[in-house]
Parts: sequence; C-alpha cells; structure tokens
Amino acid sequence: MRYIGIDIGGTNIKLALVDLGGEEPAIVSRSSFKFAHMPGDELCARIKEHSEKLCEEAGTDMSAIGGIGLSVPGSIDQTGEILLHAYNMGYHGVALKRQLAKLIPDTEIEMLNDANAAALAELCAGSLKGCRNALLLTIGTGVGSGLILDGRVFNGGQNRGCELGHLPYRNGGEPCTCGQTGCLETYVSATRIAKQGRELMGEKYADAKAVLDASVEGNDTARCIIAAYIDDLANVIAGLCCAFDPERIALGGGFSAAGDVLYGPLNRLVAERNFYRVPYDIVPAKFLNDAGVIGAAYQVKLTRQENDTKI
Amino acid sequence: MRYIGIDIGGTNIKLALVDLGGEEPAIVSRSSFKFAHMPGDELCARIKEHSEKLCEEAGTDMSAIGGIGLSVPGSIDQTGEILLHAYNMGYHGVALKRQLAKLIPDTEIEMLNDANAAALAELCAGSLKGCRNALLLTIGTGVGSGLILDGRVFNGGQNRGCELGHLPYRNGGEPCTCGQTGCLETYVSATRIAKQGRELMGEKYADAKAVLDASVEGNDTARCIIAAYIDDLANVIAGLCCAFDPERIALGGGFSAAGDVLYGPLNRLVAERNFYRVPYDIVPAKFLNDAGVIGAAYQVKLTRQENDTKI
Repeated sequence: MRYIGIDIGGTNIKLALVDLGGEEPAIVSRSSFKFAHMPGDELCARIKEHSEKLCEEAGTDMSAIGGIGLSVPGSIDQTGEILLHAYNMGYHGVALKRQLAKLIPDTEIEMLNDANAAALAELCAGSLKGCRNALLLTIGTGVGSGLILDGRVFNGGQNRGCELGHLPYRNGGEPCTCGQTGCLETYVSATRIAKQGRELMGEKYADAKAVLDASVEGNDTARCIIAAYIDDLANVIAGLCCAFDPERIALGGGFSAAGDVLYGPLNRLVAERNFYRVPYDIVPAKFLNDAGVIGAAYQVKLTRQENDTKI
Repeated sequence: MRYIGIDIGGTNIKLALVDLGGEEPAIVSRSSFKFAHMPGDELCARIKEHSEKLCEEAGTDMSAIGGIGLSVPGSIDQTGEILLHAYNMGYHGVALKRQLAKLIPDTEIEMLNDANAAALAELCAGSLKGCRNALLLTIGTGVGSGLILDGRVFNGGQNRGCELGHLPYRNGGEPCTCGQTGCLETYVSATRIAKQGRELMGEKYADAKAVLDASVEGNDTARCIIAAYIDDLANVIAGLCCAFDPERIALGGGFSAAGDVLYGPLNRLVAERNFYRVPYDIVPAKFLNDAGVIGAAYQVKLTRQENDTKI
C-alpha cells in the first residue's frame, strides 16, 4: 500500500508518496514547496495540489492511496487535530488536520509531531527496528525527542507530547525559545556549538558542522567546544537512561552523522555515568532528511491497522 | 485474601499482614525488627520467624496467605531476584528473593524497589487511584521515583528500574551518593534543606522539618531556604511534566506533609513553567510509613492475578 507522507517545516514543505508494502519503505515520487508565512487554509490547498501531482506522477490517484500523514514542527492538542504551537511557522492554534480533511474528504489523515514521526520511522524500518523501548533525539536548532515505550511512540500520559528537550537542565539557566530558562535543549542542541563557535572562533564558525570539521582537523578551540558539548550530551543521555533504560538510543539531525569523533567518547562517557553503570547502545539514526515523510506515512498505516483490528 | 508486605530499610525492617480483599487495604497485624548489618541468609531467617509470628497473631498460618512482597531500598537486577545495590544496607549482589524462597517454599515471593512499592500503593488505593499515567516522588534523604505508565508501574525498558532521582540536573554539580555529580536528588531531596539549615542557621536546623517550621513561623533565613527549594522542585516537576504529561503527581516522604506552604507555590510555579502551560495536579501521597508494606502486598496480589490470567 502507498501513503503520502508530508514533512511540514518552517521553510520547506516536503511531500513523498511512500510504498510501505515491502521490507524497506520506498519513496515512489517526491515534491516540495517553500513555506513563507501563509494561512492554514492556503497551506492545505497547496498540500492538496502537490499530493494530487505526486499521485499523477506515479500513475495513480488519491482514491487509491492509504492516507496522508502530516509531520509538524510543534505541539499538537490532545485530540490530535489542532497544531497548538509551531513557533518557526508562526502557527498557533491552527486546525490543520480538520482543514485538510475538508479539502480531501474520504482520506485517512493523521498528524504527529516531527520528532515522533522520526522515531516511528526509525522504529519501523531504521536504527530502532526490533526495539520495544528506545529513544530518538534529534539534534538541530533545538532538541526533539521521540520515546518508544512498549513498542509504541509515547506521546505523554495525557497525549500532550513528550518534550524531553524542555526538561529543565539548569534552573535559571540559558533562555530557551519556549519561554523558559535552562531547558536541556539550550545545552545540547547544535545551536549551542554554533553559538560558542561564533563567540570563540569568529563568524565563520557560527555553524556546528564547521566547528566539528575544525575540531577533526586539530583546531584546539574547536576541540574544546566539541569535547565540552559531548560531555554535556553524555550527561543528558546518561540521565535519560536512568529514567527509561532504553534498549537503544538513536541520534538524528545533521550533527548525528559526525561518526566516531562523536560516538566513541559519547558511548564511553554514558557507560561510565549512568546509574546502572552498563553500556548503552548509542547509534546514528538511519533516516535523516526523509525521517519526517517516512514516519508520517507509517503513522497512517499503523492507525489504519489499529482501526481495522478494532472492527 | 491476605498478603505479607515487608518494608526493608537501612535501619528497620517492617512487616505487616495486609488484607486486600476490601475497598481499602487493611493492616491485620504488624511486626518489626532493627536492621544492623547482617548477611542475607540471617535477614531471611528473621523475616521467616517474624512472618510466622504475624500469621499466628492473626489466627492463621503461612499456607493460608497469598504470598510475600519485599520492598527494598535499592536497585534490583533484571530478573527481579537479586538486590544489586542497597547502599544504606551495605548489600551488593544479594540474592534476597531466592534465599527467602528456600526458607519459605511454596509461597509466592515478589521483590520490588521501595519507590515502586509506594507508587503501587498510591495507584491501587491512594492518591493516584484511577490514574493511567502518574508519578510519585518520595522526598527524603534522597529522591525516589515511581512512574505509572498505562496503568502499570514502569520499571525501565530493560527492567533495570526508573531512577528519576538520578537524572542529571547539573553537569559537574553536587556529589551524589550514587557516585555521580549533579543528580537531581542532590538538589530536591530533604537533605538539601537540612544541609542549608545547618550551614545558614546552625546545628539545630540540620533537619528539613525544623527549617520548614521556622519558615512558617516567619524566620527570614528559613523562608529563603524553603522558597529556593520549592523553586528548584517546581523546576524539576515542570520538567517531568514535559516528559510524562502525568494526570497526577503525588509527593511522598516526611516533607510531603508540609501542606499549603508547599503545595500552594509548587502548583502555581509548575503551571507557569511546564512546556504545555497547563496546571498539573500535585498532591501529597496518602500512605506515608505504610506505603512500603502495602505496595509490596499489592505487588504479590497483582503478580498472582496476572499469572492466573495467563493460565
């Protein structure tokens, strides 16, 4: 069966027609468009237009697809219908799922948080495959989290979400985009590396990848920045291991592709520092840029399967 | 049906014969003895002797009880048989459940962490009754945690435990009894209040209750200590709400009985600071000194019910 997965971001909207019938998810066709601020109904109209185009290119039509999954960069209300806050889109209280359902009736539509979508993609077909309990952290501008408990994505006890990036790491610490101070993400996002790169090495290094590359090339300041970052990240992950004792932890986001320079010290420090003093398996995520569209597609597939079981 | 619940602590071992047949758990008879360091087999022999006495006093015998639950102050291995580390007992790698089973054969025996036992007591018959997802924090010398997910006590993805007290709160911060630094419990345990009381107010105030009482009576230093403590505790609980979005949070341990002076500002600050900006329901736990024996008794009851369902 084929599903449309849509990854809604603050600058780009990516769509893919995904075939989930085989062992691996296969992207059949793709589309994308730029997001500059537009009202929800305009966004939905463009999503409809691009979705129809995707189907056409693949020689099919909307009636033949299994449904549409929306991965969104923000918090969703408890009913799963309203995008409560997506700060980088300027969306607050937009009934995105309902608006799209009006334009595309008779099609299953599901909406989920982008980190949850990425975790679901990893669980179904990526680095977390086969796990019952696992964790994905996406390290970018902020830190997103997707927690797998008992084989399912955990979305909070009251379905509000699971925002580990906003765990308080230091009371009264760095200001966070969420309005609080000292959130975990202000310490272990890629933004922290970029910020220190700019401050200590100049404008050219206001980028996590540039600092990492300089560190690998032996620049002492860059090495200090990266070592201090890994030290904090290990501290954070060791703590999450105390709470969840996961079988595996996958890291997503651009920085996660750093390789041994990251995973070597990180795995060692986490093994030393977790409460149980055991090694944990910390690995890069498999799906980078496609995590959102693939996870969103899986969400529709799983919801349909669950509904079929209920009947 | 009646069960024996045993609360194993670093200074006292408390036993109770608990009737779980009614709406409320009823303690039929009690016993206790001092724990000074003794090997595991000696401890088990004394537990057997006291258990038989409990039954005798209630006009019954061991063959008529539903089983024995052991609440222990430490970490348990993944099989649930070995007490891995109970620092305040000097026990490391003691096969307590197996040793007791040898002495008392043909009796169901279950062992669980003391904070998990307390959470189970609150879930079955206390402040967390009716919740599917909830959290108990026991605030004492350290901070214990019992997390309820989907109606059950969560003991970690790999059954190693759920030690929220050892979440890292400040990398390189205060040294913790677990060997790490900056664990959450070093900031929000009652010990932190007692430590500041001693430092700022003198030896007479090396006790959380004494500082709290002085604060209520208007002592400015005590008020500062308590306000700063509640500020950190609110920060911690707001963070746990980001992660778990629980229906209710119960606080156990002696300090939890502080009343409005604690729950007033705490509920207000947590509502302001959690990521979802919603009020959370923070309440005192119902069972204080009896949480361990009652929770241990429920653990045996629930395990038996589960096993019966499997057959």
